[in-house]
Amino acid sequence: MAISNIRYGQGVTKEIGMDLQNLGARKVCLMTDKNLSQLPPVNAVLNSLAKYGINFQMYDNVRVEPTDQSFLDAIQFAKKGEFDAYVAVGGGSVMDTCKAANLYASSPTSDFLDYVNAPIGKGKPVTVPLKPLIAVPTTAGTGSETTGVAIFDFKELKVKTGIASRAIKPTLGIIDPLHTLSMPERIVANSGFDVLCHALESYTALPYNMRSPCPSNPINRPAYQGSNPISDVWALHALRIVAKYLKRAIRSPEDHEARAKMHLASAFAGIGFGNAGVHLCHGMSYPISGLVKTYKPKDYNVDHSLVPHGLSVVLTSPAVFAFTAQIHPERHLEAAEILGADIRTARIKDAGFILADTLRKFLFDLNVDDGLAAVGYSKADIPALVKGTLPQERVTKLSPRPQTEEDLSALFEASMKLY
Amino acid sequence: MAISNIRYGQGVTKEIGMDLQNLGARKVCLMTDKNLSQLPPVNAVLNSLAKYGINFQMYDNVRVEPTDQSFLDAIQFAKKGEFDAYVAVGGGSVMDTCKAANLYASSPTSDFLDYVNAPIGKGKPVTVPLKPLIAVPTTAGTGSETTGVAIFDFKELKVKTGIASRAIKPTLGIIDPLHTLSMPERIVANSGFDVLCHALESYTALPYNMRSPCPSNPINRPAYQGSNPISDVWALHALRIVAKYLKRAIRSPEDHEARAKMHLASAFAGIGFGNAGVHLCHGMSYPISGLVKTYKPKDYNVDHSLVPHGLSVVLTSPAVFAFTAQIHPERHLEAAEILGADIRTARIKDAGFILADTLRKFLFDLNVDDGLAAVGYSKADIPALVKGTLPQERVTKLSPRPQTEEDLSALFEASMKLY
Repeated sequence: MAISNIRYGQGVTKEIGMDLQNLGARKVCLMTDKNLSQLPPVNAVLNSLAKYGINFQMYDNVRVEPTDQSFLDAIQFAKKGEFDAYVAVGGGSVMDTCKAANLYASSPTSDFLDYVNAPIGKGKPVTVPLKPLIAVPTTAGTGSETTGVAIFDFKELKVKTGIASRAIKPTLGIIDPLHTLSMPERIVANSGFDVLCHALESYTALPYNMRSPCPSNPINRPAYQGSNPISDVWALHALRIVAKYLKRAIRSPEDHEARAKMHLASAFAGIGFGNAGVHLCHGMSYPISGLVKTYKPKDYNVDHSLVPHGLSVVLTSPAVFAFTAQIHPERHLEAAEILGADIRTARIKDAGFILADTLRKFLFDLNVDDGLAAVGYSKADIPALVKGTLPQERVTKLSPRPQTEEDLSALFEASMKLY
Repeated sequence: MAISNIRYGQGVTKEIGMDLQNLGARKVCLMTDKNLSQLPPVNAVLNSLAKYGINFQMYDNVRVEPTDQSFLDAIQFAKKGEFDAYVAVGGGSVMDTCKAANLYASSPTSDFLDYVNAPIGKGKPVTVPLKPLIAVPTTAGTGSETTGVAIFDFKELKVKTGIASRAIKPTLGIIDPLHTLSMPERIVANSGFDVLCHALESYTALPYNMRSPCPSNPINRPAYQGSNPISDVWALHALRIVAKYLKRAIRSPEDHEARAKMHLASAFAGIGFGNAGVHLCHGMSYPISGLVKTYKPKDYNVDHSLVPHGLSVVLTSPAVFAFTAQIHPERHLEAAEILGADIRTARIKDAGFILADTLRKFLFDLNVDDGLAAVGYSKADIPALVKGTLPQERVTKLSPRPQTEEDLSALFEASMKLY
């Protein structure tokens, strides 16, 4: 298992100019989005670049919930710039866009579909050397600073997919909890739900020694290897932090401790799922985001409809874990206990229901929209949601319990209303 | 913080030939020691090298508890061989020797003292590129497969010291629990004590944000950064495994589960202390090993006197933690609880005594020699032991509580007899 380099501490962003000097960077691409470009995290980076005399160009056109088109725009910028290092300042959208820009600028003759996950793209292994990328997360959710995954919305197919390769993993993640103080409430909540599901899904994913096919040459193994004794440590630790700090981080912007803990939990869960993988909540979330109609969430300053990633993931979680629990009920029960359930008299066969109820209560307490219906879906959309889930094999096959189209249909239906 | 690549699983050693092919290795140096060269772990590697047609030369002359002379012998072999990859199969002695051989063969004009820790050596930063090194640990203690540290006994000064640089960290650690089945009882015990102290020392080390000097350029920061939220996760997890499985692993060679868990705990604790550092138990252990007189431990098939590393570390642990507890008493109490103490009515000011008593009981249950007196030392040796500790600043300055020569003297005296 490969783990990422991270640096943690209040204010460590100010060292980024030195890091770039140490890397010998002479022309840096700084990527962010329009909202962030006015906010303290980008300012901290700009100040450090100025202090150490780093030559750079800024691209602030990253789309929140990126698409193939927005990836291509960033790739175009990167190709033109001939950069020798990249800095991504933002949430998962920015970091993922920057990973893609670095990849395709380093492999300029490749077709865009070459590296996109099969069966949508060709899923070719990355063999070209990439430039160093320093990721500075500003949310506490994606863990993208620790993973080799870049997700985007494939507009033509109306489905989210991505690129997954250890080669695109950032060289360094700078975890500076000061940055999370800029986050509005719903962004804290939705990105926190992503951490919650990363932890729950990676802890309950198919074990690493039961995954198939298991390529005999280690170099051909996927980034997502199934749950294993090392990812378990990260997943459980992240889950304990979520249980203790997420509500505080959402409710009190001034609770620096809670926001700092969630920022670290995001990286911890990222290291866990970046090696173990995620499964049904994530697999089903991609069409939920991809097929969005008119839903516009509070606190997101964007000009297009969107179901934020963390929300699209968590809305199916009660149904998903009720479905998967029959395979590792003891792990589901352990997760419920960490999230606050009293399991002293619980029966192991009820593990799925207990975890589902615990999650419903957790979400209700945090004023989460009441299921898929509340973000604009009805029963009539279920066939399209199922169809959008089917190509997400990379993750859905890591579900501990295999699922038919009927199963997926039932899971979407059970997620229409939560409370 | 940098973390290592590890692969875990029963039998994964058989893939090592493929790993070397994937690295494009054309001439491999296989290092081990004379005992191991006849045992299953080396056989498993040899079979894989043969299967994948890997060209290699074997060096089986590693000294258990290596010296500057034994390092130089291995370095000589490595320089002559012009290898493009290294494989180390063994405990800490083999892995550390192989790291040194790789380093000096890659930097052939360097003087041996150039990279040795200051103040004994010059402590120069490593700037040359090294060859890939795959480490296959056969004990469950050192965690050397995950660290950038190589320790040896400097005969002239009668003191242990080492080389510490991220650059010498193995490219990959192969954690194959099958190998631990070859270990005799006392090797399981003593290497397990090393895990115990790695976990306890890194968890109680000076916090990362209180260490000084704190070089402003991140590239100049030492490998040992002080305790931090990430190393804490590894330290506590390793400590829980030690508490649950070490006694079983020692007492029952057939307890595959316990031996596998300890093998993983060794790597976990290694990742923790490899970033956080260790402090007084390790700092004081180097003269305890270096000044050995005639002690020959059971189960070690060697022709020279030695105090095994893990034993030399653990014998001072009750005195050390009684001394350090006044700084982070709550962490010392938490460690005592994990090791089995009932702390429900404990007073925080007694944390040091409680952890010390818990450790004494733990060691007594495992028939550990009764203190430094039992391995050949008397009060008359204390000045020499103190003198040998003073140059170990790299670790002793990570003690949460600063210590005078008188303090060190008192700690050695308190460690003469444990029970």
